[in-house]
Amino acid sequence: MLRMSTLLLRTLRDDPADAEVPSHRLLVRAGYVRRIAAGIYSWLPLGYLTFRNIERIIREEMDAAGFQEVHFPSLLPREPYEESNRWGEYGPDLFKLKDRRGNDYLLGPTHEEMFTLMVKGEFSSYKDLPLSIYQIQTKFRDEVRPRSGIIRGREFVMKDSYSFDIDDAGLEVSYQRHREAYIKTFNRLGLDFNIVSAMSGAMGGSKSEEFLAPCPTGEDTYVLCPNCGFAANVEAMVTKVAAYSGTEPSALEVFDSPNTPTIGSLVELVNRKFNQNITGADTLKNVLLIADGVAISILVPGDREVDLKRVGANLPGVKELRLFEEKDFAKYPGLVKGYVGPQDAVRLGFKVYADPRIVIGSHWITGANQKDKHARFVTHGRDFDVVAFVEAAEVKAGDTCPSCGTPVVIDRAIEIGHIFQLGRKYAKALGLTVLDQNGKAQVVTMGSYGIGVSRAVAAIAEQTHDEFGLNWPREIAPAEIHLVVAGKESATVAFAEKLANDLEASGLRILFDDRLDASPGVKFKDAELIGIPYIVIVGKSLANGKIEFRVRNTGSKTELNADSAVSEILAALE
Amino acid sequence: MLRMSTLLLRTLRDDPADAEVPSHRLLVRAGYVRRIAAGIYSWLPLGYLTFRNIERIIREEMDAAGFQEVHFPSLLPREPYEESNRWGEYGPDLFKLKDRRGNDYLLGPTHEEMFTLMVKGEFSSYKDLPLSIYQIQTKFRDEVRPRSGIIRGREFVMKDSYSFDIDDAGLEVSYQRHREAYIKTFNRLGLDFNIVSAMSGAMGGSKSEEFLAPCPTGEDTYVLCPNCGFAANVEAMVTKVAAYSGTEPSALEVFDSPNTPTIGSLVELVNRKFNQNITGADTLKNVLLIADGVAISILVPGDREVDLKRVGANLPGVKELRLFEEKDFAKYPGLVKGYVGPQDAVRLGFKVYADPRIVIGSHWITGANQKDKHARFVTHGRDFDVVAFVEAAEVKAGDTCPSCGTPVVIDRAIEIGHIFQLGRKYAKALGLTVLDQNGKAQVVTMGSYGIGVSRAVAAIAEQTHDEFGLNWPREIAPAEIHLVVAGKESATVAFAEKLANDLEASGLRILFDDRLDASPGVKFKDAELIGIPYIVIVGKSLANGKIEFRVRNTGSKTELNADSAVSEILAALE
Repeated sequence: MLRMSTLLLRTLRDDPADAEVPSHRLLVRAGYVRRIAAGIYSWLPLGYLTFRNIERIIREEMDAAGFQEVHFPSLLPREPYEESNRWGEYGPDLFKLKDRRGNDYLLGPTHEEMFTLMVKGEFSSYKDLPLSIYQIQTKFRDEVRPRSGIIRGREFVMKDSYSFDIDDAGLEVSYQRHREAYIKTFNRLGLDFNIVSAMSGAMGGSKSEEFLAPCPTGEDTYVLCPNCGFAANVEAMVTKVAAYSGTEPSALEVFDSPNTPTIGSLVELVNRKFNQNITGADTLKNVLLIADGVAISILVPGDREVDLKRVGANLPGVKELRLFEEKDFAKYPGLVKGYVGPQDAVRLGFKVYADPRIVIGSHWITGANQKDKHARFVTHGRDFDVVAFVEAAEVKAGDTCPSCGTPVVIDRAIEIGHIFQLGRKYAKALGLTVLDQNGKAQVVTMGSYGIGVSRAVAAIAEQTHDEFGLNWPREIAPAEIHLVVAGKESATVAFAEKLANDLEASGLRILFDDRLDASPGVKFKDAELIGIPYIVIVGKSLANGKIEFRVRNTGSKTELNADSAVSEILAALE
Repeated sequence: MLRMSTLLLRTLRDDPADAEVPSHRLLVRAGYVRRIAAGIYSWLPLGYLTFRNIERIIREEMDAAGFQEVHFPSLLPREPYEESNRWGEYGPDLFKLKDRRGNDYLLGPTHEEMFTLMVKGEFSSYKDLPLSIYQIQTKFRDEVRPRSGIIRGREFVMKDSYSFDIDDAGLEVSYQRHREAYIKTFNRLGLDFNIVSAMSGAMGGSKSEEFLAPCPTGEDTYVLCPNCGFAANVEAMVTKVAAYSGTEPSALEVFDSPNTPTIGSLVELVNRKFNQNITGADTLKNVLLIADGVAISILVPGDREVDLKRVGANLPGVKELRLFEEKDFAKYPGLVKGYVGPQDAVRLGFKVYADPRIVIGSHWITGANQKDKHARFVTHGRDFDVVAFVEAAEVKAGDTCPSCGTPVVIDRAIEIGHIFQLGRKYAKALGLTVLDQNGKAQVVTMGSYGIGVSRAVAAIAEQTHDEFGLNWPREIAPAEIHLVVAGKESATVAFAEKLANDLEASGLRILFDDRLDASPGVKFKDAELIGIPYIVIVGKSLANGKIEFRVRNTGSKTELNADSAVSEILAALE
């Protein structure tokens, strides 16, 4: 039994200054977590009980699915991460350190390499597969901007699983098993979530989905179709377009266009000059980027911005992507800033990619690669070509669902899980092969699957809290019953003490507010803030043989008979 | 149910090359742990199940004692460790690193500072105390020589508790509560242990005891009295001596002693020259040391070595202690190497400490501070004085028990727990005060209490293993029953499969060796190596309605009736 009189807990009246989101605010105020450094938190007793309930549910569901639990260290030697290339690729997000002998180590941000090597060390035959193993472990990532309390921390707990299969069909089965286990897990955690496509295939056919918990303060944006349920993160949103069905455009025509620094001013000029009624969507923006040192142009309709995250996720193999800077224009003197068009790309030395909306045969108003001049009837396939189509334009509410054509909505969420068909990248880099039925060595194919365990505490708090405080599902809550003594009379206290013991004896987890130096008002406020699902109050009405039973979630209040309190409470909890 | 056919497990026939101790050898061979780097291990499924059983028992006992669980990060900011002085004092054992902004962090080797600050952040009144809080958490120490597998690693799991009290009497109560909880915990873990005095009081009256699990390969040496049960680590062993009761010695007499480089040769010369029968115990060794930059001499009888660990632990406040080197002799040119005596200490500029055996009034044969000359009748209190007595001489089997006078034995052990009255050091350094009954701020007094959780896996293995393999107590073992199918006939396999399910349904934890490609011999050997306490074999005798039941620990084998196998097994396990 937890007793408020001795519990390491002081609730706070005021919001912490650095808290932006409700879960952070409430978890600090209700005495669940405390900040140690940027993105680094400690857990007080109520918080750690909550954390461990979530950890237990996740572990039970992984075990039930037949996944085997292992455990790796946090302090990892450099070599495996060298072999997979991630020692360098991970960049400043990786915490690195040296031991007393000067050897390089890192603090594990995720453990693909180590899992791969573990399986390599033990298994050698196709008969050993499939295998799915997991750990629940502390991870370290030196985030640029740790924020939202425990939602994006620098030290956090993840459940990470990895599957190992001999072939793609096996990987698909393992992937589906994890997907189902995740659905069960998040349902049991009481989370509302969407399974959202991530990465539409740029990684060479590998499949990936995110589990997103909708929440207005979430830092992930995703697309949702209200009709068919299609869901994708913005990187994975697919643009559906019809083939060009208009007539053959007139020949390319260059025209004077001084003082048109914006799409708006260009549209205005065109409509005036040619007596037309075009919009920004009829113009073509050439957004110049440097992709791994190479100059590229991304074509999008003039009414859309380029979404660099989308471009990055959809340009296979590109590691570094940035906008053109002055120094880049200096290197390509033929480029006339503000008047770039794709029709001279070969001569000017840049590669052209296009958003799918720039369909072959369509014509556009765009820069003429001369100062103060634009061109119209610039036609894709006739006047310019592209290296490839790439999902590049920002996604907007009302865009077309690629699955059913309905206008989509855009929503915010917290990522609570991610499942991913890794394929053979790590197995190849680290030499994980098994002998197949013909005695031939085959590179194993892998999946990786993650759940943010500490983050789930915050995600559940985000989705369940109300204006008064936290509001946990029963299985998650640090206790099931919050028993408040509202009075100092010895009979009241004695009755409450006995009731607390009887309820505990009947198998319930009790938080007993037995403080003698706190007023009933303070106790009620604390009970609402702490968020235990059922609140029992022993107070004045005990003189009439009554106690009060409150449901935190609904706010409902009922009177129970003091004499049969335990059985009535048990019945109410059914 | 764990199935050998799918379990991530490959037992090894051969001992790993780097394994010195049985637990290390067997935990690797039986597929419990794998080495990642020096002193850094990962856990395979069987190992992690065992680890978690131990962790659960420890947690249950801590909770039962009323201690509250909290949890701290591993990545800790420099500042609190600066304030306690440990950022520097800890030396190269501390893993240090910088984050992307260049701020200093350390990986927590122990969390006194953080616990102190947590309580400071929440509590402010004597009414909030006593408080005992704990965590089960990963620790990092960059050991000079990580060894013995998971016994002395660089990343390991500890349960560390801290108590907070308003006064010394409260601390004593908290200390005793932890001591009792530790006794219960280690009993439940099935460990044989001794509670051993550590640090005899040099730290200013603070009390400390170690829980040592006797084991021939243990790296801790301790003293045990076979009569009264007195136990102490060698640092804390107290020398009992009688006051000098002989007659007043003759006057100090210098004599020629060429060619006496050893105590043996000096004894031989004296006995010849003066027709005596002395031993090395009648001579006085002057061991020169540098203690924090100051030259000191430690006097011990010539038949004993100086134990630097004992000196270090018993010289209050000394941080660095080392033997004299050539360069030190160069600084003290009056010192004649090999002929040093305490009688000229003041003139020669060194401080003298003496082992308690050098009682006041006793006389000794020692160096005369001249080349090729010794002196006899050199008398303590007449010819030389000492700054203080210090426990300095090595402890030997047969030394006198300080409690009852019986000759003690010396034993080896693994340290599995340590309880310690810290006092006010950390509370003072970090400003943890509470208001007392008179509204006056009082510095809180603390205790710290540790159990090596991952180390306990190895300690239990060390104490329970035999020549065939591991041999776990039931509550610790990764399964309770190891069920072996010894045969490939479908009836045998089907019976075993059903039995495995029935046993699991009756609440037992089962490891089922359902491999079809392993011979009965291999399976039996694996069962012995893995060390599950009960082994059930379904094989040939099933044709006669019999199965075999083995007890791993005793080697006993019994036949059970196949028809009533579940009930007979349950009865056998009672």
